[in-house]
Amino acid sequence: MDQASASERDILRATVALCQEKGYDEVGFAAVAAAAGVPESRLHEQWRTKSALVIDAFRAEVGRDLVFPDTGDFAVDLRTQLAAIARIFHDPNLGPHLARVIGEGQRDADVAAQFLERVYTPNRAAARARFQSAQAAGQLRSDLDLDAAIDLAFAPFWFRLLVKSGPNNEDYVNSVVDLAKRGLGVP
Amino acid sequence: MDQASASERDILRATVALCQEKGYDEVGFAAVAAAAGVPESRLHEQWRTKSALVIDAFRAEVGRDLVFPDTGDFAVDLRTQLAAIARIFHDPNLGPHLARVIGEGQRDADVAAQFLERVYTPNRAAARARFQSAQAAGQLRSDLDLDAAIDLAFAPFWFRLLVKSGPNNEDYVNSVVDLAKRGLGVP
Repeated sequence: MDQASASERDILRATVALCQEKGYDEVGFAAVAAAAGVPESRLHEQWRTKSALVIDAFRAEVGRDLVFPDTGDFAVDLRTQLAAIARIFHDPNLGPHLARVIGEGQRDADVAAQFLERVYTPNRAAARARFQSAQAAGQLRSDLDLDAAIDLAFAPFWFRLLVKSGPNNEDYVNSVVDLAKRGLGVP
Repeated sequence: MDQASASERDILRATVALCQEKGYDEVGFAAVAAAAGVPESRLHEQWRTKSALVIDAFRAEVGRDLVFPDTGDFAVDLRTQLAAIARIFHDPNLGPHLARVIGEGQRDADVAAQFLERVYTPNRAAARARFQSAQAAGQLRSDLDLDAAIDLAFAPFWFRLLVKSGPNNEDYVNSVVDLAKRGLGVP
């Protein structure tokens, strides 16, 4: 492992820790650099804005839980992935910070663009690929508007994260999985 | 029509107009009072915070389009209501301002609570009542988790409003209505 990736990991971990301890408003390049033990210039080399750094930090934090699984059984994999999203959103150390980034995106178009580029786009590509392999395997209706179909399954968890109308708990996962599978024509 | 309701309407209209012209950050009780031609004390009598005023103002603006219809045909009414939500969210004079309020709710718990109380709760009660009358009429599966079912149908439009991954246009309405009806067991 080279020095650059080691310092990147330290920076990302320090960013998450500072967000969790002090909140988004209090986090800045100087504080992160100090906490990570790197010169602030190191951060400016890689991240143009604080929001890009925060997005990368939380993406790294949850990334290992968000690889869309492929066991060959789409119904199982869809449930696994929806349950993983719900767990992340329901985690008080993660959900509110992700919600905060989406919230910043409503006042700052650059934050919204960074989130689309760094989180939505790669995650959506992975989901589309898994939905398409399920269609090829006859485990998912073939005539779907794929983006709408993925939204249908995942958006309820985003809704509860952002509108705060109820918890993203196991009961909710069970209900949404049942409804979404019927909607998508997953046997 | 009494004087109080006339001044309330003026205040709410002035609030919406100022949000649209200047943006949420620039709106305050003093500017709204001046634009509405009422003393600022009149606003403080009725609204504790700016966010409560802004929420009431946009609720009044879109309220007439958001009475869940009851024609006796649930499939038709669900489509009508989902299309109405999509139109509001897609409207550049409304959608971004609603999104901004949800965004503020991520940094200010009081804004989130006001939105839940003033918008989500009454709208959800109306949706639940319409879903239940559809169940009684045999036009909707009777074994649904109603809150999850309503979320499934409506959350995709919230997702696109807030994550900005695509437009809430007619094609999207058609796709989501098709998927949601299957999910909910609407013939």
